[in-house]
Amino acid sequence: MQLTETHRPRLDQALETIRTRAYWSPHPEHPKAYGESAPADGLAAFEALRGTRFELDQPGTDGWTGAEVSPYGPELGIEYPHPDIDVLLPAMRAGMGAWREAGPETRALVCLEILSRISARTHEFAHAVMHTSGQAFMMAFQAGGPHAQDRGLEAVAYAYEEQTRTPVAADWSKPQGKRDPLELRKTFTTAGRGISLLIGCNTFPTWNGYPGLFASLATGNPVLVKPHPRAVLPLALTVRVAREVLTEAGFDPNLVCLAAERPGEGIAKTLAVRPEVKIIDYTGSTGFGDWLEANARQAQVYTEKAGVNTVVVDSTDNYKGMLSNLAFSLSLYSGQMCTTPQNLLIPRDGITTDAGHKSYDEVVTDIAASVGGLLGDDARANALLGALVNPDVKARLDGATGLGEVALPSRKIANPEFPDAVVRTPVIVKLDGARKFWEGADAEAAYLSECFGPVSFAVSVDSTADALELLRRTVRDKGAMTVGAYTTSAETERAIEDVCLEESAQLSLNLTGGVYVNQTAAFSDFHGSGGNPAANAALCDGAFVSNRFRVVEVRRQA
Amino acid sequence: MQLTETHRPRLDQALETIRTRAYWSPHPEHPKAYGESAPADGLAAFEALRGTRFELDQPGTDGWTGAEVSPYGPELGIEYPHPDIDVLLPAMRAGMGAWREAGPETRALVCLEILSRISARTHEFAHAVMHTSGQAFMMAFQAGGPHAQDRGLEAVAYAYEEQTRTPVAADWSKPQGKRDPLELRKTFTTAGRGISLLIGCNTFPTWNGYPGLFASLATGNPVLVKPHPRAVLPLALTVRVAREVLTEAGFDPNLVCLAAERPGEGIAKTLAVRPEVKIIDYTGSTGFGDWLEANARQAQVYTEKAGVNTVVVDSTDNYKGMLSNLAFSLSLYSGQMCTTPQNLLIPRDGITTDAGHKSYDEVVTDIAASVGGLLGDDARANALLGALVNPDVKARLDGATGLGEVALPSRKIANPEFPDAVVRTPVIVKLDGARKFWEGADAEAAYLSECFGPVSFAVSVDSTADALELLRRTVRDKGAMTVGAYTTSAETERAIEDVCLEESAQLSLNLTGGVYVNQTAAFSDFHGSGGNPAANAALCDGAFVSNRFRVVEVRRQA
Repeated sequence: MQLTETHRPRLDQALETIRTRAYWSPHPEHPKAYGESAPADGLAAFEALRGTRFELDQPGTDGWTGAEVSPYGPELGIEYPHPDIDVLLPAMRAGMGAWREAGPETRALVCLEILSRISARTHEFAHAVMHTSGQAFMMAFQAGGPHAQDRGLEAVAYAYEEQTRTPVAADWSKPQGKRDPLELRKTFTTAGRGISLLIGCNTFPTWNGYPGLFASLATGNPVLVKPHPRAVLPLALTVRVAREVLTEAGFDPNLVCLAAERPGEGIAKTLAVRPEVKIIDYTGSTGFGDWLEANARQAQVYTEKAGVNTVVVDSTDNYKGMLSNLAFSLSLYSGQMCTTPQNLLIPRDGITTDAGHKSYDEVVTDIAASVGGLLGDDARANALLGALVNPDVKARLDGATGLGEVALPSRKIANPEFPDAVVRTPVIVKLDGARKFWEGADAEAAYLSECFGPVSFAVSVDSTADALELLRRTVRDKGAMTVGAYTTSAETERAIEDVCLEESAQLSLNLTGGVYVNQTAAFSDFHGSGGNPAANAALCDGAFVSNRFRVVEVRRQA
Repeated sequence: MQLTETHRPRLDQALETIRTRAYWSPHPEHPKAYGESAPADGLAAFEALRGTRFELDQPGTDGWTGAEVSPYGPELGIEYPHPDIDVLLPAMRAGMGAWREAGPETRALVCLEILSRISARTHEFAHAVMHTSGQAFMMAFQAGGPHAQDRGLEAVAYAYEEQTRTPVAADWSKPQGKRDPLELRKTFTTAGRGISLLIGCNTFPTWNGYPGLFASLATGNPVLVKPHPRAVLPLALTVRVAREVLTEAGFDPNLVCLAAERPGEGIAKTLAVRPEVKIIDYTGSTGFGDWLEANARQAQVYTEKAGVNTVVVDSTDNYKGMLSNLAFSLSLYSGQMCTTPQNLLIPRDGITTDAGHKSYDEVVTDIAASVGGLLGDDARANALLGALVNPDVKARLDGATGLGEVALPSRKIANPEFPDAVVRTPVIVKLDGARKFWEGADAEAAYLSECFGPVSFAVSVDSTADALELLRRTVRDKGAMTVGAYTTSAETERAIEDVCLEESAQLSLNLTGGVYVNQTAAFSDFHGSGGNPAANAALCDGAFVSNRFRVVEVRRQA
């Protein structure tokens, strides 16, 4: 494999971009960029996987398991190897020595080859992501394909940079006055910690999975991929590609393995406390994330958990732009993003806009109308909303209407291609930020909990200052992946920034165009801050990679 | 203050050196380098502190406390402010905003000014370290002065580099085909996490304290210094200097405060779980270190705990050099260094040397003779050994003679200047690595526990392969700050390296001159690996600084 010629320029560009944080991506967003036959080939490849056993030829397989059902309706019917972990874990460690000796550059370039082959199969991955996450095809294509690959490449770049901060060797000579200097020859080797466990999520199996997977692999660790049982295929395909590339590059394919679980097995809990497991990446519920942090004490644990995202609406000089921007943010993938705004904090006396003063009720009505307009056409609604990923989301959506006055009811959308898909428009519920209860329902408890799915709360507040206090409390106590704000006041802007700086939240200000608070771009935007309860790590920064390996020094008298 | 002109070149040199890892230090090791009057001035300054109240003018003082007694005998008689933490902690947070806004460079340069003023008072600090740690004057001078200052500066350099990996602002422009590009203006601010708690140790209050203190301060966090109750003065002086510099530079002095405790108060346990405390640096027992890791869940916890350091003796081409090198390592500061070798693993069939084959007994006898020779002169012995830091060390030394056959008994040394000082030469005890018990004593339990102080075990092993297995088990289960080895075999050398790479231990090979396994040089050597049970962090690397702050991004439509 000509790894250097093929991939070193791309690695260099990634290294450059994480320093400038300008726009860059080597992975095209447009489906047409992948060649004329790619769409049909990708679909055919996906269809060919259905109803088969997904062979991986990894050691320690003690049976087959799999029960994925597409949120669009069809059963995937794919079975994956179930691991005998007492056989698999030792086998995964066997290749660590050669992988360590390969050094940071070769490891990075092998990772880039893996990403490159995944990229070439983006259409196939798009169908796999669509039919496990419920994302609409175009989103599954972009977020599950190029954007996920970007995040993987970004992690490789951070890992490479971090490992090469220390030279591989140094000559050290300490003067001793008139005597000969003390002289040592020193070598420094980056060594992985041990097996890295990736616990995948249902909604973004590749996007949320690739940073940890590639950060760990690039820093010298074998990676065991434990997918969400509803979203195995995208990560199983990833494991297969990684194993192929590792083999071709002369390394042990068992450096990347799959751990699919039997229904109800809870294998993550078993794996997480195994002594061989030294690193864990997890995206999912706060409950299990907290459990991992408390119990997997032998491992470095990186978690992305629940959070409550807020948008502070203070004032705007582009009312229309604000409405359409918010409508899109609330609608994309039925609000099933960890970055989707949940609480819209709006002063009860209304706001100043370029279209005149707008009362709280008017603002809420106008946002509702904007969402309604955006999703008025069923074809467009299907393309934006995708399907509800699982029955829990549907249950939360149904329950939300009892929490307060419904400003925008959810609407059922028919999907002509997949009649079993559960497609719903978002609900917007009005809550009074000054009153704890609404007709017996605990309104405060509602907006201070994550209601994952197409549910937003338009919370009336006494003032923007009141909104900032609620924002601070929400971020501090519940965490947030994103904060948005609209204001024309420099003073208010500064106050919002201060809250975000003090409580460690990522802020998007006055977005009225084609960038949305729930989207971040690899190489430029951080995903999460790692400094509030929603996540203990950010994607991607030095802290995300620097403790996945250790530097071992050997000193010899020169 | 002309911070940039004064300190930027030094910061740049530190940044350069942590990349090359060549020799460098801006802090002179020789006492004469500090000016003719410095020795007398330093002693006078130290004497003037005795029997006084150590005023710090920090908020929330609810009384005075202090009961330091020099390991050399004299009571220091110094009282320190005792904190009302409900007043002190909020006061410490007040200055965080301005400290954050100052940015990474100003914070680094203020830290360098603090270090520079400490450096100018190295003689005074040397007496303070000597009379709290029991180190001999020259060691207290070097390890407590320039070497500690080097480690502080190193941490500042790492902190600066880590914080400046991301630009303060970026323009992002994403092409949209024929449409206008999406454009965002982004700012990135490094924000400290909250109050950083330094829990100091008895033996190296400055050397082990400065890395965490300066890493946290340089990354934007207030630092609360909780010294060991027997070693308050060196850190109280440090806090005073820091407060002076902060004030003069226009910042809140309460960014650095002292938390001296009343006898038996255990204030560290209270402070460690306060929600305001987000970072903890700790050096001390494994018991409390483990407690911190398990309980201070709201904080990033960096611990250096107990470990068992091993030297593998396989063969040598410089037998005399090996003996004298080992003798010095075992003797320095009465073995009261976390890096002092404890277990010398020697094949029972003996070793090959340039002086012919040497049996196990001969090797042990020769090491014992070498130690005896080194410490034969009482003046030199006092200068090397210092005093036992506390009665626990003495008790362990006394107990060690019952664990096996004594190859070198400990000898009591009189200190003419300080007749109450407890000065003892090291004991070397022979143990059989193949037999668990020796005359009823659990020999294996002995050499597999840290016996902190002037106690070494000459453990006979069946072979070098056997030694490596014991080394691996020791590092994996008990941790190690250092590993040493002597071998002339390339194959054996490689095998030892592999164990250290696999178990994450820092290795010194064939040291026979003036560099010792227990000494590391800032900017070049890592102290600990952070990858075995002796410490969860290394001094200093990216991982030691990268999670002490977070990057908060603000995006605005351009």
